[in-house]
Amino acid sequence: MSRALVTELLRANLPARSLITDPKALKPYETDGLTAIRELPWLVALPETVQQVEAVVRICRSHGVPIVARGAGTGLSGGARPHKDGIVLGLSKLNKILEVDVDNCVARVQPGVRNQAISDASAKHGLYYAPDPSSQIACSIGGNVAENSGGVHCLKYGLTVHNVVGLEVLTVDGNFLELGGKGLDSPGYDLLALLSGSEGMLGIVTEVTVRLLPKPPEKRVILAAFHEVKAAADVVGNIIGHGLIPAGLEMMDRLAIEAAEDYVHAGYPREAAAILLCELDGIEAEVESNVTFVLRLLEDGGAYDVRVAVEPEEQALFWLGRKAAFPAMGRISPDYYCMDGTIPRTRLSEVLESIEQLSRHYGLRVANVFHAGDGNLHPLILYDANQPGQLERTEEMGGKILELCVAVGGSVTGEHGVGVEKLDQMCSQFSAAELDQFHRLKEAFDPELLLNPGKAIPSLSRCSEIGGMHIHGGKLPFPHIERF
Amino acid sequence: MSRALVTELLRANLPARSLITDPKALKPYETDGLTAIRELPWLVALPETVQQVEAVVRICRSHGVPIVARGAGTGLSGGARPHKDGIVLGLSKLNKILEVDVDNCVARVQPGVRNQAISDASAKHGLYYAPDPSSQIACSIGGNVAENSGGVHCLKYGLTVHNVVGLEVLTVDGNFLELGGKGLDSPGYDLLALLSGSEGMLGIVTEVTVRLLPKPPEKRVILAAFHEVKAAADVVGNIIGHGLIPAGLEMMDRLAIEAAEDYVHAGYPREAAAILLCELDGIEAEVESNVTFVLRLLEDGGAYDVRVAVEPEEQALFWLGRKAAFPAMGRISPDYYCMDGTIPRTRLSEVLESIEQLSRHYGLRVANVFHAGDGNLHPLILYDANQPGQLERTEEMGGKILELCVAVGGSVTGEHGVGVEKLDQMCSQFSAAELDQFHRLKEAFDPELLLNPGKAIPSLSRCSEIGGMHIHGGKLPFPHIERF
Repeated sequence: MSRALVTELLRANLPARSLITDPKALKPYETDGLTAIRELPWLVALPETVQQVEAVVRICRSHGVPIVARGAGTGLSGGARPHKDGIVLGLSKLNKILEVDVDNCVARVQPGVRNQAISDASAKHGLYYAPDPSSQIACSIGGNVAENSGGVHCLKYGLTVHNVVGLEVLTVDGNFLELGGKGLDSPGYDLLALLSGSEGMLGIVTEVTVRLLPKPPEKRVILAAFHEVKAAADVVGNIIGHGLIPAGLEMMDRLAIEAAEDYVHAGYPREAAAILLCELDGIEAEVESNVTFVLRLLEDGGAYDVRVAVEPEEQALFWLGRKAAFPAMGRISPDYYCMDGTIPRTRLSEVLESIEQLSRHYGLRVANVFHAGDGNLHPLILYDANQPGQLERTEEMGGKILELCVAVGGSVTGEHGVGVEKLDQMCSQFSAAELDQFHRLKEAFDPELLLNPGKAIPSLSRCSEIGGMHIHGGKLPFPHIERF
Repeated sequence: MSRALVTELLRANLPARSLITDPKALKPYETDGLTAIRELPWLVALPETVQQVEAVVRICRSHGVPIVARGAGTGLSGGARPHKDGIVLGLSKLNKILEVDVDNCVARVQPGVRNQAISDASAKHGLYYAPDPSSQIACSIGGNVAENSGGVHCLKYGLTVHNVVGLEVLTVDGNFLELGGKGLDSPGYDLLALLSGSEGMLGIVTEVTVRLLPKPPEKRVILAAFHEVKAAADVVGNIIGHGLIPAGLEMMDRLAIEAAEDYVHAGYPREAAAILLCELDGIEAEVESNVTFVLRLLEDGGAYDVRVAVEPEEQALFWLGRKAAFPAMGRISPDYYCMDGTIPRTRLSEVLESIEQLSRHYGLRVANVFHAGDGNLHPLILYDANQPGQLERTEEMGGKILELCVAVGGSVTGEHGVGVEKLDQMCSQFSAAELDQFHRLKEAFDPELLLNPGKAIPSLSRCSEIGGMHIHGGKLPFPHIERF
């Protein structure tokens, strides 16, 4: 492959402003939100039309150049980390909202459209797009599809895959696939779901049709404080176990509460061992009845300080602390590493206890801020990259947390994807046969392995190098985790 | 392939009662619910354990014998029609409910468990399994997964794919894949969704974990009669357009109303051009508020006879006519052909009008009984197979209806699958590139094409034989349908 030739071909097909080759200008593209892992690409293409995307893919295919698709670069697992011999295909300039179809409650948008922009464009019709990753102001819908992103409200409204009804996908062969659409269901194999969360490895998403929901007329946010983490975790299980699915059900532990409170003064009870934030939405009668029900479970479950926010300003304040929790970590620690794993909700309190044990073992503080309702943990490991060995210890401990998630029947990712971050843990999650099936599927889309190579699915040889780690979901007895 | 040798090997691995070779005993297996298309298999295997399933697959793979998996045989698109050189692998004896996990609201079951049996086993915990195909008393969960089955309540609660959280799948290579599980999301490519609706062509499902829902404490069923079909269709759009998703929203036209009424005396208004049945469920306050809202829309939309069933007996009576509508056709016509296609809800009244035109053109009566809320049509074409040419005219007209669905942006199946019935219409639904991608994906799972070969995805040569039919979803101007 001649870089000079490929560059020349790209210049012939794209405007000059759409190609970045200057090393200084390339710098911002060397990493996504997982900043610990960097690689400088040799070229970034930022096409402005689907035809230009097509040209980039055609040229790269002809010359065997790896392509790493990139949305807004907010991903947290390194899914958009460049390939050293490849180009980055940035889709941020494909940012048109093509249609807001009010009658069918869908919006058709280009992949570079920001998540929040879809809700903004639909607001005048009383509609919105439900999945809300923390980065929703910045992240793009194309990136959301690639990582099957979640957010606070995914407990009730589902992940990205549940809210996307159609995709237009460009294959590495240069074909456009139209998947799904405005009707219910679709015949043939479910490529729409398959592409969701495929981390740019099966095709390039060039158009997305999302479901829009009517804005719930009423909502309440409940804040409840507990003296014990276990009590809070048990109430979470009780609420869901009674069949009530709140719009959001979040948990924060003491370290997270203190850091957030110091930072934004949301009025959180600093002395609490844990707080729950529970949002209930719907029509008025439904919300009122659900609030009453949740308040009773909170009381029975030992909550000692319970507040209900009715006014939008107060609700926003309750959420402010939660939303500020990640940046707040930067004030109490030079660095932090945000983990992402899921567990069956019923194992919540024992897993939090095991994380606490790991924290003591590795001598690293952990703050927990997470989507408790759907068992999606986000332990934040606090460390100092300038202290020799701390980053390595942090990564090792992070790996142990993910293996713990698998051991209790959960998974190594909830909403951040695998990227490069969790390749090793995929060896614990899946058997050789399962990984092999993944690779065969990849080859059915991309036989030359040009699309985001080396991500998401580890090679079998990598897994065997790190040893026979496969500990299949939930089938091992829990005592397994005692060895941590 | 030597049939004698394969039979001998199967006898060595399965009990005698699990093998059927006698032609008379094979007869019931020559067709599924699509009785117009028949083929006698040369052997039916009915394994009683997963190990026996494994043995059947191993033996068939070694000797190149096609395998057609079969659940309860209630499918309506011929997905379980036998292959003339293959065996039928019936999974009906794998019918154990392995676990009802109340805390995590899931049930783990074998593939031959009947849909209704899951709800029965969960009832004592106040839980149930939501998708409810008309055949739910008989159909198996494995078959539901294979066809991604729907039902009346899928409008609110989703199709099978939305209610299955885990699968154990045996590949043709003899490997077990564990897909999904009790936690939220799963890393790697979404094979769980991919297997749903794959019609037994990618692997054999040996275990299914389904989500259970708490039974809604209250429900109401509204019956509303209209003098015009268009008015009823418009109200359907209005209800959903206002963001209210009923548990069920069904429509029947005059011919269906009369036939059902004559059969079961549900008290339907015989003179109505169309009736709507709308079920609202949830907590009491929510249900009451939603009933008031729907009643207002019905009144504004011109309903002339509106009744609300509060008591379970009266609700059952309202539903009885709907449920009896299909068998009732047998009383007014020697034969009927049940179609299944979806359209965007907003095109409902114009599509019904076009079906009426087709009915006149072909001289065949059509009764419409369908899931109006999600745009899933079930036109029932009435014909007499003993009249020369009627079956052919019926099939031709059915094909036109499906192409009409595609032309307005819908699809050729809502919940019955493609099987052998809709192979030709798949040529209209998908482009050559899309079909090619499907075939490559199939080969990534089953390179020898032994699993249910020839179903669901037409060959490219078949499509080119029947001409360049591809009319991509919703992209053609609607005048296209004028030519019918």
